[in-house]
Amino acid sequence: MAYTIQALAEAIGGVAHGSIDLTITGAAEPAAARADDIALAMRPAFADTLKTGAARAAILWDDADWQAYGLEAAILVSRPRLAMARLTERFDRGQGYTLGIDRSAMIESSATIGSDTSVGPMTYIAANVQIGDNCLIGPQCYIGDGVVLGDGAVIHAGVRILARVRIGARFRASPGVVVGADGHSFVTPEESAVEQARATLGTEVTAKAQSWQRIHSLGSVIIGDDVELGANTTVDAGTIRPTEIGDGCKIDNLCQIGHNVRLGHDCLFSAQTGVAGSTVIGNNVILGGQVGVSDNITVGDNVVVGGGSKLLSKVPAGRVMLGYPATKMDQNLEIYRLQRRLPRLFEQVAALQKAVFKTGDKD
Amino acid sequence: MAYTIQALAEAIGGVAHGSIDLTITGAAEPAAARADDIALAMRPAFADTLKTGAARAAILWDDADWQAYGLEAAILVSRPRLAMARLTERFDRGQGYTLGIDRSAMIESSATIGSDTSVGPMTYIAANVQIGDNCLIGPQCYIGDGVVLGDGAVIHAGVRILARVRIGARFRASPGVVVGADGHSFVTPEESAVEQARATLGTEVTAKAQSWQRIHSLGSVIIGDDVELGANTTVDAGTIRPTEIGDGCKIDNLCQIGHNVRLGHDCLFSAQTGVAGSTVIGNNVILGGQVGVSDNITVGDNVVVGGGSKLLSKVPAGRVMLGYPATKMDQNLEIYRLQRRLPRLFEQVAALQKAVFKTGDKD
Amino acid sequence: MAYTIQALAEAIGGVAHGSIDLTITGAAEPAAARADDIALAMRPAFADTLKTGAARAAILWDDADWQAYGLEAAILVSRPRLAMARLTERFDRGQGYTLGIDRSAMIESSATIGSDTSVGPMTYIAANVQIGDNCLIGPQCYIGDGVVLGDGAVIHAGVRILARVRIGARFRASPGVVVGADGHSFVTPEESAVEQARATLGTEVTAKAQSWQRIHSLGSVIIGDDVELGANTTVDAGTIRPTEIGDGCKIDNLCQIGHNVRLGHDCLFSAQTGVAGSTVIGNNVILGGQVGVSDNITVGDNVVVGGGSKLLSKVPAGRVMLGYPATKMDQNLEIYRLQRRLPRLFEQVAALQKAVFKTGDKD
Repeated sequence: MAYTIQALAEAIGGVAHGSIDLTITGAAEPAAARADDIALAMRPAFADTLKTGAARAAILWDDADWQAYGLEAAILVSRPRLAMARLTERFDRGQGYTLGIDRSAMIESSATIGSDTSVGPMTYIAANVQIGDNCLIGPQCYIGDGVVLGDGAVIHAGVRILARVRIGARFRASPGVVVGADGHSFVTPEESAVEQARATLGTEVTAKAQSWQRIHSLGSVIIGDDVELGANTTVDAGTIRPTEIGDGCKIDNLCQIGHNVRLGHDCLFSAQTGVAGSTVIGNNVILGGQVGVSDNITVGDNVVVGGGSKLLSKVPAGRVMLGYPATKMDQNLEIYRLQRRLPRLFEQVAALQKAVFKTGDKD
Repeated sequence: MAYTIQALAEAIGGVAHGSIDLTITGAAEPAAARADDIALAMRPAFADTLKTGAARAAILWDDADWQAYGLEAAILVSRPRLAMARLTERFDRGQGYTLGIDRSAMIESSATIGSDTSVGPMTYIAANVQIGDNCLIGPQCYIGDGVVLGDGAVIHAGVRILARVRIGARFRASPGVVVGADGHSFVTPEESAVEQARATLGTEVTAKAQSWQRIHSLGSVIIGDDVELGANTTVDAGTIRPTEIGDGCKIDNLCQIGHNVRLGHDCLFSAQTGVAGSTVIGNNVILGGQVGVSDNITVGDNVVVGGGSKLLSKVPAGRVMLGYPATKMDQNLEIYRLQRRLPRLFEQVAALQKAVFKTGDKD
Repeated sequence: MAYTIQALAEAIGGVAHGSIDLTITGAAEPAAARADDIALAMRPAFADTLKTGAARAAILWDDADWQAYGLEAAILVSRPRLAMARLTERFDRGQGYTLGIDRSAMIESSATIGSDTSVGPMTYIAANVQIGDNCLIGPQCYIGDGVVLGDGAVIHAGVRILARVRIGARFRASPGVVVGADGHSFVTPEESAVEQARATLGTEVTAKAQSWQRIHSLGSVIIGDDVELGANTTVDAGTIRPTEIGDGCKIDNLCQIGHNVRLGHDCLFSAQTGVAGSTVIGNNVILGGQVGVSDNITVGDNVVVGGGSKLLSKVPAGRVMLGYPATKMDQNLEIYRLQRRLPRLFEQVAALQKAVFKTGDKD
């Protein structure tokens, strides 16, 4: 991978300056850059370390005085992270997965595989599977009975997609992803302790232990275009209708999407986040790491939720939420601030009691 | 899979009405139902959408006026979710895993495999394994040295069961489950920072960094009958004696059961829940999603814990818990309610100070 | 595995007493011990159950009156857990993984495998991999392009190490570990809702939904010596430079280490803990279970964090933290204590208002 400064500037949407024919073969942080790397110095603090490295060219912010850093060439960009997206795409060397259909892959005869699609070593593709064109299926994957997978997918090593899951174009799944496993849905013959606890808000639980009967998951999963799932993330099958993940959703590692959940388009979930069964989440919803969303609630469009928050009830569109239980972020931060002042408040009230009632708090 | 209304009513414990010989080939939500589906309309809100779909028969609640919905036949049920369990079991098409012993499976000669048990492609079964009858072992699984697995197991693709784990009848494991990996148990040569922090409740930590020495896990895992483990869930081996999971426990995806933990029977854990090492949990305990249970504590029978809660100390039997740290649910909800009123309380105290002491709060 | 009491005492750093030539073939809890086991009775409560079992020898605390328990021999130890580490190492029977290079393993011709290294069934080793001596690579693993793995590694079944990851000596990875998958790093063409929420602390979010553009992960992962990763734990690749895990870190199951994270040496993380992107963590940091650490913060050396805590901002060295948001543990426990007294505080303020202003709280 080699680019001139000029070509790279065009590719990443920046403006080339200086020796625009200089050839670049990689990208690096300023201090670690070699002579043929382009240094990533989108902020002044990074640019200050340029002289520690050997870069002759760098990417800087849009009004940077690039010559002041002793560079031969520069690309100035107005939205650095967007430039990063385009740049890193150009320099991504990928996993080097085997191309073509590996001899050790097992593909049932009723499966159809699109053109220019690769299937890695020891991957198993079940009956009635339909895989599109230009897909890269890594090694040791399992693609279950009747799965439909669109064009341009990148399925990393050890992904498991279970029966009848349907997935759109340009799907990316990191290793260990599981899509379409059974939902966690059980019922007891008689009313259970958890049903009683919910009904009474916890004041009365008299239920005896009973065996849990499985409600089977017949609904599988349907996933839109441009969806990405992180390593070891799990998406459960729906009970009757499919669990749904809308176009453009990007879900990080170790997340859980429960049965019957519906996600709108362009949601962004950080690692270890979980959405419980039958909850409906709108478009462009952003959940931080380790967020939990209760079952059977709705979360409106454009909601943003801070890391670690637990959403226990319905959230209207556009709200920014934080905490456990999650409330509006500004309200939550105010409560946190006041909590830290509680010791003083208790003292003040004790002093008031003494003054008013001529008595201390015996508590 | 085709059933008459009469046969289906008997199977699910409901009462058939109308054209009881009508043949049904699937189940669907009312609006999506085709002519040969039975529509699932256990609540009036669902029944109202029956006319959007093409169903001629539906399952409704026990005193529903089924004819008012223009149906030819109906099954009325008194406990809808229990009917769902029985219905979905009948219509489950399964994963379509290869039956028989696949030619690409590797089975060590000292392993014994029961009758009518299938072993999927590229699964490895180690020495001294004993597998019961009527099991379905999916593809790409690993069954380790000396594992004992009872009759009727369903082991999905990519499950790893490590050495000497013993499992009862009718075990179900979703893809990516790991049972019997090493526990997380380490010790430093001298007293460590965490030991000091526990001993002093955090007031003094002077320990220097030291290397962690592994305490190996010799105890493996013992699992009862009718246990289910969700996708990518992990159960660690015990140190000296086995980690134990009682009969009938149902554990969702991405859960962690630490070394030496003992679970009673019929526990139900939602996704991303973790139980730390050496904790003992009673029977019929229900943990919501993302619950955490500290190490070395006991949780009594029939405890119910709301999603996101962290149990930091012993919980008596029958209690309903919520929060971090978890307290009794009603106490917790009261504290949450008062927290939201803190801003006003601070104002009130400031006003009182002004009135009583003729001074504002300088804080 | 058979040891005399004398040999075992030397191995675990204890002092042998009584019949020091007695031969021991296993270790057990006192009540479950057979005649040839050594009973683990490091605390009086355990020793009291010695007579329930059949052990003739036991390990006890350093001033125990071992003869009072009717034993023929004893080993007295001053730091029981350290003795446990040494003892369990001696009696660990391991997984029994296939030794040598299994015929069903696939190893690309450009890979180099050290001496006395085993590669298990159906494991795939990609091009340009370098594996050291005395490694045990289990079945069904994936070692990606250009990975460098040091001497003495134990890689359990189903581990995935992606391209260009570099790992030191004595690495241990439990089943399902994923190292080097793509980081969760995305950008929108225009300013996104989450950027707005951060900038305004949540008071204003007007951003429209936009598609997320992937920032590719070029930096892979570098891991030091003596690192252990628990089952299904994930470590993401860095964006430009590697994600780094220092020597001696021990990370439990289902943990997430985000892209660009740097961990110092000898950190100990319990299960389901997550560290978000670009955060820097010092040496000897101990995180309890389900801890979350925000992105782009620093955590100093020797910090200890209680289970379930969420670190939302920078933490100085040596601090003991608890809660969500995490604060100093003693401060946090005081706030929890006061929260439980809030109902009484509200009553007291109401009484004061009545007394001072001759009015009740109308709120």
